[in-house]
Amino acid sequence: MSTHHYYQLQGYFRELIELKTLKSGSKLPSEREIGEQFKLTRVTVRQALQNLEAEGLIYRQNRKGWFVTPPAVVYNPSSHLSFNLYVTEQGFVPHTEKLMQQIEPANAYIAQLMNIPEHAPVLYLHRRRYINQRPVLIEKMYINTRLLPGIEKEDLTQSLSQLLKNNYQREYRDMDLVFKSTSLPSSAADDLGISAGQPGLHIERINYTADKQVLEVDYEFWRHDAVTINIAIRD
Amino acid sequence: MSTHHYYQLQGYFRELIELKTLKSGSKLPSEREIGEQFKLTRVTVRQALQNLEAEGLIYRQNRKGWFVTPPAVVYNPSSHLSFNLYVTEQGFVPHTEKLMQQIEPANAYIAQLMNIPEHAPVLYLHRRRYINQRPVLIEKMYINTRLLPGIEKEDLTQSLSQLLKNNYQREYRDMDLVFKSTSLPSSAADDLGISAGQPGLHIERINYTADKQVLEVDYEFWRHDAVTINIAIRD
Repeated sequence: MSTHHYYQLQGYFRELIELKTLKSGSKLPSEREIGEQFKLTRVTVRQALQNLEAEGLIYRQNRKGWFVTPPAVVYNPSSHLSFNLYVTEQGFVPHTEKLMQQIEPANAYIAQLMNIPEHAPVLYLHRRRYINQRPVLIEKMYINTRLLPGIEKEDLTQSLSQLLKNNYQREYRDMDLVFKSTSLPSSAADDLGISAGQPGLHIERINYTADKQVLEVDYEFWRHDAVTINIAIRD
Repeated sequence: MSTHHYYQLQGYFRELIELKTLKSGSKLPSEREIGEQFKLTRVTVRQALQNLEAEGLIYRQNRKGWFVTPPAVVYNPSSHLSFNLYVTEQGFVPHTEKLMQQIEPANAYIAQLMNIPEHAPVLYLHRRRYINQRPVLIEKMYINTRLLPGIEKEDLTQSLSQLLKNNYQREYRDMDLVFKSTSLPSSAADDLGISAGQPGLHIERINYTADKQVLEVDYEFWRHDAVTINIAIRD
């Protein structure tokens, strides 16, 4: 298999995507079909597709095949908009799925942040969030049930900021954010339906109330091609 | 080769690193040596090392072998510290190498930001930055020479914020930041001495003067394991 064919295949799909003949979110033919059409080995087809993936043009969903990457959503933490709001405002459709919830004893780090005794109960919530039916974000969070009594009985697939406003007259205000580009650990990759070791964005976020109490500690893993973070630093 | 041996090898190195028997920055034996010592195939050794790499415990430098990952440096854009200062403050040794500089015509985007005519001259500067002799950051920037006349004749391996303060009585103030976790494009990966497709952090940063003029537009690629971004959002 010559380099020539290899680049040709990449160029072919790149052009179809740039001309929007292959539209955002649409499915590519299977690797087998591409191989037959272009008389290329599966290995060569796979390599070309992986290069297009590294360019961010296509992505693979486990057991479903290859798709054209939709535009990344912009997340601006200073805006204080909920996931549902900023995704919707940008013309996409958000969806949230609860994977697990349980009351569990706070570890030392969480307890110290929330100013509660170690092993005091907190709500652990594990969710998967979608944009246009693509799983893009895994959230694992610890919620301060002392400030939000009974929250574990609510529908926790809804926007928590909406829930806090409506039921508790509380609002998210200050945040401490830690961003890290990373290889996805296998647990997050499995939840997102992609291969472990793919690049991802890890965010740790501490959410405070207006009176500086810790409402929630979040650990998020995003698909690398699904989000861009915008931040304005103003003195 | 059984899964058993495979996890054993990962566990063996993980323990050596966690116990600091293998210290931060130190070199692992070659893949061939590890294979001989543990009677494992090169493929198995390579897979175990790649898994440790995905965990962020070790990293590979092209043609030099595998090394224990040093702790990530923390970059806090709100602090307005230069690379040299924040790296030094965290106990590491910074170093900067200039790869290229040239006066070139501004493209439409840069010209609009800098409020200069399209094709007006700007300084393009391409640098590689090191922490403890490891290349961690590739910078490509466009510098507003209208605000900083003659800057192209200075030593551009030094801290630009220092240079601006000393020679031009200018300071970096506001910033617009865009973060994206990405697969490293081959140009940045080559400059960093790692394989294309490895995860990396891409930052686009627009630096303003105190009177809101654009001093500089930066495009940065960081090794994913070399940096953590900390940001506090305060209203």
